[in-house]
Amino acid sequence: MTKIYNFGAGPSMLPGTVLQRAQEELLDWHGAGISVLEMGHRSQVYTAIAEKAEADFRELLDVPADYRILFLQGGATGQFSAVPLNLMGDKAKTAYLLTGVWSEKAAAEALRYGEVHVVATGRAESYTKIPQPEQWLLDSNAAYVHYTANETIGGVEFQQIPDVGALTLVSDMSSNILSRPVDVSRFGLIYAGAQKNIGPAGITVVIVREDLLGRANSITPSVFDYTKQANNASMLNTPPTYNWYMLGLVLEWLKEQGGIAALEQKNIRKSAKLYAAIDRSSLYSNPIGLACRSRMNVPFRIADTELEERFLKDSVREGLINLEGHRSVGDFRASIYNAMPEEGVDVLIEFMREFERRYG
Amino acid sequence: MTKIYNFGAGPSMLPGTVLQRAQEELLDWHGAGISVLEMGHRSQVYTAIAEKAEADFRELLDVPADYRILFLQGGATGQFSAVPLNLMGDKAKTAYLLTGVWSEKAAAEALRYGEVHVVATGRAESYTKIPQPEQWLLDSNAAYVHYTANETIGGVEFQQIPDVGALTLVSDMSSNILSRPVDVSRFGLIYAGAQKNIGPAGITVVIVREDLLGRANSITPSVFDYTKQANNASMLNTPPTYNWYMLGLVLEWLKEQGGIAALEQKNIRKSAKLYAAIDRSSLYSNPIGLACRSRMNVPFRIADTELEERFLKDSVREGLINLEGHRSVGDFRASIYNAMPEEGVDVLIEFMREFERRYG
Repeated sequence: MTKIYNFGAGPSMLPGTVLQRAQEELLDWHGAGISVLEMGHRSQVYTAIAEKAEADFRELLDVPADYRILFLQGGATGQFSAVPLNLMGDKAKTAYLLTGVWSEKAAAEALRYGEVHVVATGRAESYTKIPQPEQWLLDSNAAYVHYTANETIGGVEFQQIPDVGALTLVSDMSSNILSRPVDVSRFGLIYAGAQKNIGPAGITVVIVREDLLGRANSITPSVFDYTKQANNASMLNTPPTYNWYMLGLVLEWLKEQGGIAALEQKNIRKSAKLYAAIDRSSLYSNPIGLACRSRMNVPFRIADTELEERFLKDSVREGLINLEGHRSVGDFRASIYNAMPEEGVDVLIEFMREFERRYG
Repeated sequence: MTKIYNFGAGPSMLPGTVLQRAQEELLDWHGAGISVLEMGHRSQVYTAIAEKAEADFRELLDVPADYRILFLQGGATGQFSAVPLNLMGDKAKTAYLLTGVWSEKAAAEALRYGEVHVVATGRAESYTKIPQPEQWLLDSNAAYVHYTANETIGGVEFQQIPDVGALTLVSDMSSNILSRPVDVSRFGLIYAGAQKNIGPAGITVVIVREDLLGRANSITPSVFDYTKQANNASMLNTPPTYNWYMLGLVLEWLKEQGGIAALEQKNIRKSAKLYAAIDRSSLYSNPIGLACRSRMNVPFRIADTELEERFLKDSVREGLINLEGHRSVGDFRASIYNAMPEEGVDVLIEFMREFERRYG
C-alpha cells in the first residue's frame, strides 16, 4: 500500500508512534483494567496522566512558574470570546493586529464585548505581508494587544514576537505552538487549539500570567473563566479526558524528538526546501512576503488553473492527501506541522517536480 | 485477571465491543489510510461519520424533524450559560426547578444573565424528594422552565416529564439520556454531556426546537450560539472529531441492543434489583423517595461508618471500582448506565451481601 502523507491543516497528521501507543493502550491503560476513555477525571490514575501532560508542556515550552497552563474546551474560536471576557477588566477597548482570516475573526468576536482598536492591517496587500512595526498604531488604553502568530489559511507567520512596549501581549498560536521556542515571559496570554501541532481536536491550551487572573467580566460563562478553571486545575467541570491524554502522548513524542529546539531545526529544513521548490518552478507560486512565510502552512498556486483538478487527483493517488487549500481561499496548501516527517515533504517535492515536468 | 466493573459516575464505563472496535479502527479507519484522530472535520470521509452519528441519534430518540441536533463542546456546565444566553430573548427571567446539586448549579449560572424564578426546591428535604407539582409556582413571564432529569450526585430522577403548561421546557439529561424513551416534542430544548450514557467526555449534545433559534443575546460566545452552530452543522469551528466518532460507535451499539425501549427494560431490571438488595439489608440504605429513585445513579450508605474504608478496599479487590460517592457528598454510589451489564450489578449485589454477612 502507498504510504500516506496527510497535509491537512487540522485536525492533522499525528506521529505514527503516538497512534500505535494509543492503540496498544486503548483497552487497558497500563494494567488499570479500564480504558483512558472510561476513567473518571478525578481518579488518581487519570489525574496523574493529566498532571504529567501539564508538566511536560511546561518543560517543553519553558513556561515560567508565574504562568498557569489551562486545558479547556471550545477551540481557538472559544478563546476569541474568552480572551476579552477575561482580560478587559475595566478597560473599554482591546487592540488587534490584523494579518489574515483568523486575526479578523478574533477581532470580530472581541467587538461583542467592547471597542476594538486596529493596530495595523495587512488587508490592502491581501494579507501577503505583515504590516511593518513603524506602521503600527498602539493604544495605551487597550487592555491587551492580540496577534495571530501563524495564519493557518494565509500561510503568514510572525518570525519575531511583536514589540508592544508595556502593553499586555496576547497570541493565538493554534497553528505553530511547540514548532519553535518562544519566550513566554513576553506574553500575558497564549492560547492554542490542539488539533494542529499538539494533539487531536477538542482540547485547547491556555497559558496565562497569574497576575491577569481575577478580572473576568461577570457575564463570562464559568467554563471560560480562567480564574475558576485555574483554581480547579482545569477541572471546574469534566475536561475532555481522552483528548488531554492524547495531547500528553504527543508531548512525550516531542520530548523524544529532542524537544522544541530540535523540532524547529527540522521545521526550518522542511519549509525551506518546499519554498525553494516552489520558487524555482515556473508552474507553482507562493504569494507571501519572504520575511513572513509560514513554516507550518505553505499555500501555493498553479499557474495553469486547468491543471488544478488533475494535480489534486494525482497527488491523492500518490498518497499525498488533503492538499486542497482552505474552502475560503481555494488553491493548494501543504500543512507541514511537527508530525510531518521530512521524507513526506521530500515525496511532495518530488511529486510536484514530476507533475511540472509532465504537464507544466 | 478479575473482571472489572466500573461504577464511576462519568466519564464512565463504555461497552467492551465499542472499545474493541475503536482499537481496531484506530490506525486506519475502514481503509482510509489514516486515523479518525487525523481526519479534517470537513473531509468527506469525516462528515459521513458525523452525519451517521446524528442520524442514529435522531432515530434512537425519535427526534422530530423540527428539532436540530447539535454536537458542541463545554459539557453541561457550558450549557448552563448557553441556555439562558440563547433562550432568554427579551424576557427578563428564567425559571428553575431545584432538585439537587446540578439544578442548583444550572440556576446559579443563569443568574449571571437575568432573574431566576425558583419553581420549587427540594432543599428542605435534603433533595431526597422531588417537590410535588401542586407545590410548584410557575411564572408565565419566564423564558423557559429548566429541570435536571436525573441528579447524578443525589440519585434523584424524574419518572415523568414535568407539566409546565404552555411554557418552554428545558432539560439537562446528561446522566439519563438514551436510557429510556422520551417524548422530545414536549421540550423546547434538551442537552446532555456525553460522558455518562452516550460516549466519552468532551462532547455535548443539544436538541433544540427550530423556532427557538435566532434569539441569542449579542454577548453569546459564537461557539455557544445555537443558531450559528445549527447553520454550520455544528462545525462553526473545529468540533471534537474523535469524541463525536466515539459517540457514534456507542449509538451503533445501542441500536444493536434493540434501541432505547430495550435498554429501558434492562435499566429497570438492573436498578430494581440493586434497590431491592439495599432495602432488604440492615447495613445499607438509600435515602431517596421511592417515586424518584434514579435508575442510573444509586447512592447508598453503610450504617456502620467504620466499615466504609474496608468496603471500598474490598470492592476494588473484587474488580468493582469507583463506588465512592461524589466528593461533595461522601458515602457510596453505583452508577449503572446503559453500558453496565446486568451481571455487573449481580456481582455488586453478591459482594454487598457477602460483605454484610461477614461484617454487618
